[in-house]
Amino acid sequence: MENRVYNFNPGPATLPLTVLQQAQSELLNYQGTGMSILETSHRAKEFEEIIIDTEALFKEITGLGDDYRVLFCQGGASQQFAMVPLNFLQSGKSADYVLTGSFAKKAYQEAQKIGAAGIAANTAPDYRRIPKPEELNFNSDAAYVHITTNNTIYGTEWHYVPETDAPLVADMSSDILSRPWDYQKFGLVYAGAQKNLGPAGVTLVLIRQDLLTEIPDNLPAMFNYATFAGNNSMYNTPPTFSIYLLRLVLRWIQEQGGLTAMGRQNQEKAALLYEVIDEDDFYRGHAEADSRSLMNVTFRLPSAELEKAFLAEAAAVGLVGLKGHRSVGGIRASIYNAMSRQGCEKLASFMHDFRKRHR
Amino acid sequence: MENRVYNFNPGPATLPLTVLQQAQSELLNYQGTGMSILETSHRAKEFEEIIIDTEALFKEITGLGDDYRVLFCQGGASQQFAMVPLNFLQSGKSADYVLTGSFAKKAYQEAQKIGAAGIAANTAPDYRRIPKPEELNFNSDAAYVHITTNNTIYGTEWHYVPETDAPLVADMSSDILSRPWDYQKFGLVYAGAQKNLGPAGVTLVLIRQDLLTEIPDNLPAMFNYATFAGNNSMYNTPPTFSIYLLRLVLRWIQEQGGLTAMGRQNQEKAALLYEVIDEDDFYRGHAEADSRSLMNVTFRLPSAELEKAFLAEAAAVGLVGLKGHRSVGGIRASIYNAMSRQGCEKLASFMHDFRKRHR
Repeated sequence: MENRVYNFNPGPATLPLTVLQQAQSELLNYQGTGMSILETSHRAKEFEEIIIDTEALFKEITGLGDDYRVLFCQGGASQQFAMVPLNFLQSGKSADYVLTGSFAKKAYQEAQKIGAAGIAANTAPDYRRIPKPEELNFNSDAAYVHITTNNTIYGTEWHYVPETDAPLVADMSSDILSRPWDYQKFGLVYAGAQKNLGPAGVTLVLIRQDLLTEIPDNLPAMFNYATFAGNNSMYNTPPTFSIYLLRLVLRWIQEQGGLTAMGRQNQEKAALLYEVIDEDDFYRGHAEADSRSLMNVTFRLPSAELEKAFLAEAAAVGLVGLKGHRSVGGIRASIYNAMSRQGCEKLASFMHDFRKRHR
Repeated sequence: MENRVYNFNPGPATLPLTVLQQAQSELLNYQGTGMSILETSHRAKEFEEIIIDTEALFKEITGLGDDYRVLFCQGGASQQFAMVPLNFLQSGKSADYVLTGSFAKKAYQEAQKIGAAGIAANTAPDYRRIPKPEELNFNSDAAYVHITTNNTIYGTEWHYVPETDAPLVADMSSDILSRPWDYQKFGLVYAGAQKNLGPAGVTLVLIRQDLLTEIPDNLPAMFNYATFAGNNSMYNTPPTFSIYLLRLVLRWIQEQGGLTAMGRQNQEKAALLYEVIDEDDFYRGHAEADSRSLMNVTFRLPSAELEKAFLAEAAAVGLVGLKGHRSVGGIRASIYNAMSRQGCEKLASFMHDFRKRHR
């Protein structure tokens, strides 16, 4: 595929080429049914097989058993910011939020509209790091603890799972399935699919079964996790095509060797870029070294002019989507699971070359 | 496309073949960008152009001006059942619901979880008809009036727009853009896309601008229509691929000749089937004649055995998705915009033939 670029967009993001090719090849006729999967009823056995297998695949990849369910919601992480407190914060208890970026802060602000929420730690305003265990002030009878495992905008990532008494809830939108990780320690995990799992339009929610019993029963049906769990996420029409693609991506992860292989590849890919950054002070990483993300590599150049030149020259050689978020500025290379090692090598080599020419 | 069937599924439903072909042809590389539209950032100019043009196209097709906005939400009509009252029923006023089917009833039940809701008319339990104007008991100071313009399960459809003092809210999931219709009379219209507009995964909301000012400002961001209106539906990542396909479907409607052409074609298609039903009493339509839907043609056969044989024989000749909903039973032919006249002719001819053989 010579005409494809290396796409470093933060999400929606690059997808495995083989996944796109399979979707393309069967787009007019899914497995001999004479119709597209886009046209297939969610009640048809072909789709039912997809949604059931997608849940099973996710649990297989993460090593989880019957004490967990995988739900397919909509509305992205932003809708989860409200759904989590609607389901678990109406008891009068308070929840503990760890603020490590603007999405973590938004999650906290949405919770405040619904119930009581406190701040267990806060690395504002620069969000250059993840708090250390000793900085986390958890309330012993919190309804839950909420963290954001990877902060897309700032390029920081949790490298440990905090110990909590309360159920641990995590927004994993930008690093889910990127490495082996102890999913058993989480009560609820949510992730918009458009970074590491597939296309925009489906939000994966992993929930420990016992939490389903704590949900108030007067919630609107579509805001109640129990509605999704009780109907295999088919209380109403789910986003069928997004789930179909999510399943193809999960199969691809398995074919690559699962989370162990993903973690190794992602370590190596990120190291290629951080090594260039650390060679001298031309590139300045935003994140503190021990909080660096393996998914989003954020850095500045000596001047805004050089950053502009970097983006233009990179795009000219097929390295696109590298502009940093306005709140950090500079460059952000998003290198999720589906970004190839080759893409990172090409970017690292471009960074070397650019520095040589512009120092 | 010889291997394609005629797909009478109620939704997700058949899509125009040219739309699928275009999506297929550019699935690996959207307009020379070197990436799929599935991989394109929602902040990229290519996607921004799509979402802005999709709103403009919808307003052009419906003849609406600057006093309306088109929003792209998620969660289907079921989520709208809660969002409408969350936005407009917290003032202490009551809303009037017209119950013409099980989705209308669900909308009413969700509203009751949030505020005060009354029943303006009810055709339960068989839902064979739409109430006449004189049967509608509207409360003069209602917050809004809610109707379901087409009842997919029962095969009934409103053929007039009720006169109301309060803003008129309509679930048009299964007949939006199927005919010329006075959209100016509605304050808010919502529709899951998977019947007449495109694939599952996006919910179109049409809202009259003045209603946006009545929304309480402490709502969770993703449940507030003003969040969508204020951010061109890009407060967070929208379901980009579904919106891309929705735009292709809207273009296809324009190419067909817009709502006038759609209405004429849909009249003719439905007439082909209703004529066979009315010839004698072998087929018994569920809906009363003056409430018949142009989108979902529902009927029974003399016995359950014959209905089973009908479905099997129809499938064998490439007429699929005809099984009625369990609450009505029998046969349901869903013949939305994208179902061709040819498909309806083939079904009508099959119905003739089946009757001859099994009478």
